[in-house]
Amino acid sequence: MTPFDRLCSRFRRIAILEEAVGMLYWDTAAMMPPGAADGRSEQLATLRELAHAMLVAPETADELAAAEALAPDEDPRRAMQLALMRRRWRRAVALPSALVAELSRARSRCETAWRSARTENDYAIVAPTLAALLDLVREEAAALGSALALAPYDALLDGYEPGLRAADCNRIFERLEEFLPALLDRVMALQDEQPAPLSLAGPFPVERQAAFARELMANIGFDFDHGRLDTSAHPFCGGSPDDVRITTRYDEGDFLKAIMGVLHETGHALYERGLPADLRRQPAGEARGMAVHESQSLVLEMQACRSREFTGWMAPRAEAAFGGTGDAWSGGNLHRLVTRVDRGLIRVDANEIAYPLHVILRFRLEQALLAGDLPVADLPGAWSDGMASMLGVRPADDRAGCLQDIHWYDGGFGYFPTYTLGAMMAAQLFAAAEAAEPDLRRHLGAGDFRPLVGWLRRHVHGHGALLSWDEILRRATGKPLDVAVFRRHLERRYLDEHRPRTA
Amino acid sequence: MTPFDRLCSRFRRIAILEEAVGMLYWDTAAMMPPGAADGRSEQLATLRELAHAMLVAPETADELAAAEALAPDEDPRRAMQLALMRRRWRRAVALPSALVAELSRARSRCETAWRSARTENDYAIVAPTLAALLDLVREEAAALGSALALAPYDALLDGYEPGLRAADCNRIFERLEEFLPALLDRVMALQDEQPAPLSLAGPFPVERQAAFARELMANIGFDFDHGRLDTSAHPFCGGSPDDVRITTRYDEGDFLKAIMGVLHETGHALYERGLPADLRRQPAGEARGMAVHESQSLVLEMQACRSREFTGWMAPRAEAAFGGTGDAWSGGNLHRLVTRVDRGLIRVDANEIAYPLHVILRFRLEQALLAGDLPVADLPGAWSDGMASMLGVRPADDRAGCLQDIHWYDGGFGYFPTYTLGAMMAAQLFAAAEAAEPDLRRHLGAGDFRPLVGWLRRHVHGHGALLSWDEILRRATGKPLDVAVFRRHLERRYLDEHRPRTA
Repeated sequence: MTPFDRLCSRFRRIAILEEAVGMLYWDTAAMMPPGAADGRSEQLATLRELAHAMLVAPETADELAAAEALAPDEDPRRAMQLALMRRRWRRAVALPSALVAELSRARSRCETAWRSARTENDYAIVAPTLAALLDLVREEAAALGSALALAPYDALLDGYEPGLRAADCNRIFERLEEFLPALLDRVMALQDEQPAPLSLAGPFPVERQAAFARELMANIGFDFDHGRLDTSAHPFCGGSPDDVRITTRYDEGDFLKAIMGVLHETGHALYERGLPADLRRQPAGEARGMAVHESQSLVLEMQACRSREFTGWMAPRAEAAFGGTGDAWSGGNLHRLVTRVDRGLIRVDANEIAYPLHVILRFRLEQALLAGDLPVADLPGAWSDGMASMLGVRPADDRAGCLQDIHWYDGGFGYFPTYTLGAMMAAQLFAAAEAAEPDLRRHLGAGDFRPLVGWLRRHVHGHGALLSWDEILRRATGKPLDVAVFRRHLERRYLDEHRPRTA
Repeated sequence: MTPFDRLCSRFRRIAILEEAVGMLYWDTAAMMPPGAADGRSEQLATLRELAHAMLVAPETADELAAAEALAPDEDPRRAMQLALMRRRWRRAVALPSALVAELSRARSRCETAWRSARTENDYAIVAPTLAALLDLVREEAAALGSALALAPYDALLDGYEPGLRAADCNRIFERLEEFLPALLDRVMALQDEQPAPLSLAGPFPVERQAAFARELMANIGFDFDHGRLDTSAHPFCGGSPDDVRITTRYDEGDFLKAIMGVLHETGHALYERGLPADLRRQPAGEARGMAVHESQSLVLEMQACRSREFTGWMAPRAEAAFGGTGDAWSGGNLHRLVTRVDRGLIRVDANEIAYPLHVILRFRLEQALLAGDLPVADLPGAWSDGMASMLGVRPADDRAGCLQDIHWYDGGFGYFPTYTLGAMMAAQLFAAAEAAEPDLRRHLGAGDFRPLVGWLRRHVHGHGALLSWDEILRRATGKPLDVAVFRRHLERRYLDEHRPRTA
């Protein structure tokens, strides 16, 4: 065995441990009885420790050095594989194990406090533990930054989407801020001029929703020989590329919530299934980063499935699935229901136009928190002011404000920007797919996802982690991330398509 | 940390890996999509290798020696804990890793061939691979025997129920053979004198069966905060003591099959839940062996739940659960249905009287195979002759004969005797519980399992692996395994209770 082969074998074992973690995580969310929580935490911690120990073992460093010394320049694929292994190793050894353990405890404590704070609607309950956690996250960011030659916040961002920098986000977000608030105003005004969409009369039994979700998933190309759909409090896509487990939650009064959630997770699932099989269980064969992952969920949910064409195809099938009847079940009405816009305070319920504004607020606040420019005690006020200036609304309480998301309280700083990068990439990828396959929308209108998914397989999924998010986008669309494309998508859908038709 | 503390910590990590294996095994049987099978095999193999590596690491031997040198004589509990650790280690290091790998491959090959042979009803398909596997099992038995100072077959038996020897089995089985065939004749004759029980008219929808099973489980004391009931092709009890996962399979034409299966697995589950919490994840805190485990499933299913008292309590509840009506749903008829006797050829469907005869046949044949006294080619004939002499029936083909069970084709020699030891222990434990709690049957007739389960907790579950099967039985019942108690149970249930009542 060459040093490179030994590395592949080592990373394969690490990946297998991570798959076991993934399955147990899925089980925790979808299957586990509540009394097993403590034992499960210890199972997950032990498996993670073992994977970490394999990665930071002295042999890994030796093998990396030996393989790099031998790596031939003419094999760029292998060079990239090695670089990705080195990257994984570098991030793992950058953090002293005492800091990792402290961070883990502080995250648990803060998340627990956050649950109480949210229930009690009292930010003061969590503020001290958040401040303590922030101190450790600062240490983490500094240690990673120094090991990777990155600014502290960039080092965190880079952990979620390799290669993404705060400067990129800043530049892009400033452009978004120039038009999104005004666009939101115009779209709301346009909505007000028209009658509200008809509401769909439930209840919609959970079993029927699940059956309809599976029908749609199968139609789109989800392979039930290699995956499942189940229920959990917080929808996610987990498991492994050979066994993709997606979840959703059901509201008997509104089936569109669960269905749109399932279509979103199906996009994530198709990405995982489409990763390069010959690099399976290697760093190069994994999904790129969270921005690219989100682009794949949103290209399916937002671009394809909230289109007029797809909702037109889905409408009679939904009508049949739920025994509906009347004008409310028309494709046009369904389309208006799934593209309705408001000034909601909650990010996860936000529409496509408002969502980036929620993200930009968090992006600014988390940098200020991390830098120490915004004291933890001042977060609720800053949040409220930010919402007022960006979205024109103020939360009545912190539950609808800075207590709504788990991310920071779980130590996750630098994650939020990937949501909006993903949304913009999705629009740009869809536009490029449409240019390459001019009948794409017609096919979606016939429920045929093969042209879209085939294009995504070739231009995104099949690259695994071999290209950066930026390179994927440039190669697939011929240009870097372009705010104008995202803007065009929003204006087309929310202004042009919603204007009353004239004969 | 003392050497003993370090050992506890090491065995704790090994147990956690084994729990992860247990959860993935459950998932494989109950949840996994079929296409994920190969990836799952590799996950299981990797986790098992890691656990094995931790056990055979040189540090384990050093810690064992150091802890044994320090072990104070006055702490018998700690001495037993250490002995159980030493035992685990001794069995693990006894086998050269090349043999373990060869065995693993030969088992896979033979199991695959067995599936074809059974489908094709052609023993010749599997005979050569079984012969090859047997050679390796002989090596395994010899290596274990030499490390443990045991005869080869005893070394295998000891792996399933520590302390159990072929000589014990022989002595007991000879006594059983003296009366079981004649008893079977008498019971069948008695059955023939009476009208057959009324059959229950289905179909019984799976959802109702599952709901009724959960109702019974909860009533018996299964804690759904620490366990689940799901569906799998082969029912089993898995997971961990904090998260007991039992499964069953459903036949829409006969709900009693699934229900009796669930009650059986519930017995296993109560044992797991009742293991000593202060020894959790230690060898001393595990279930004793397969015979004791089977005694706990059978004391619940066979002793308690097939009793006239419990079936009387269950009957109106079953009637309500399935919307049944008429005499077929009376307690008396249900009792006759679940205590019906025949000369069936299939072990897993066998009744309490015939079951030990199936086991004795396998016990004799597997020793002869292992010793080389019975050539693999002669197994079908020997099987047929054995069935004819013990049960008075001959299988029409090998599918109903020597191809019916997976055990040998998966390398499992020495397992079968534990089924019958368990059945006999169950009868003896139940009799002792009844002597200690004279109202036991009256409570079962009111659906109240607390006296029985409480007694089992104190006398069996709570000992973990600290006592041998024989010691558990002696302490709980005041005597060693007693064939007369088992015989009395069978005669009472199948002769006395089935005689027509006279006013």
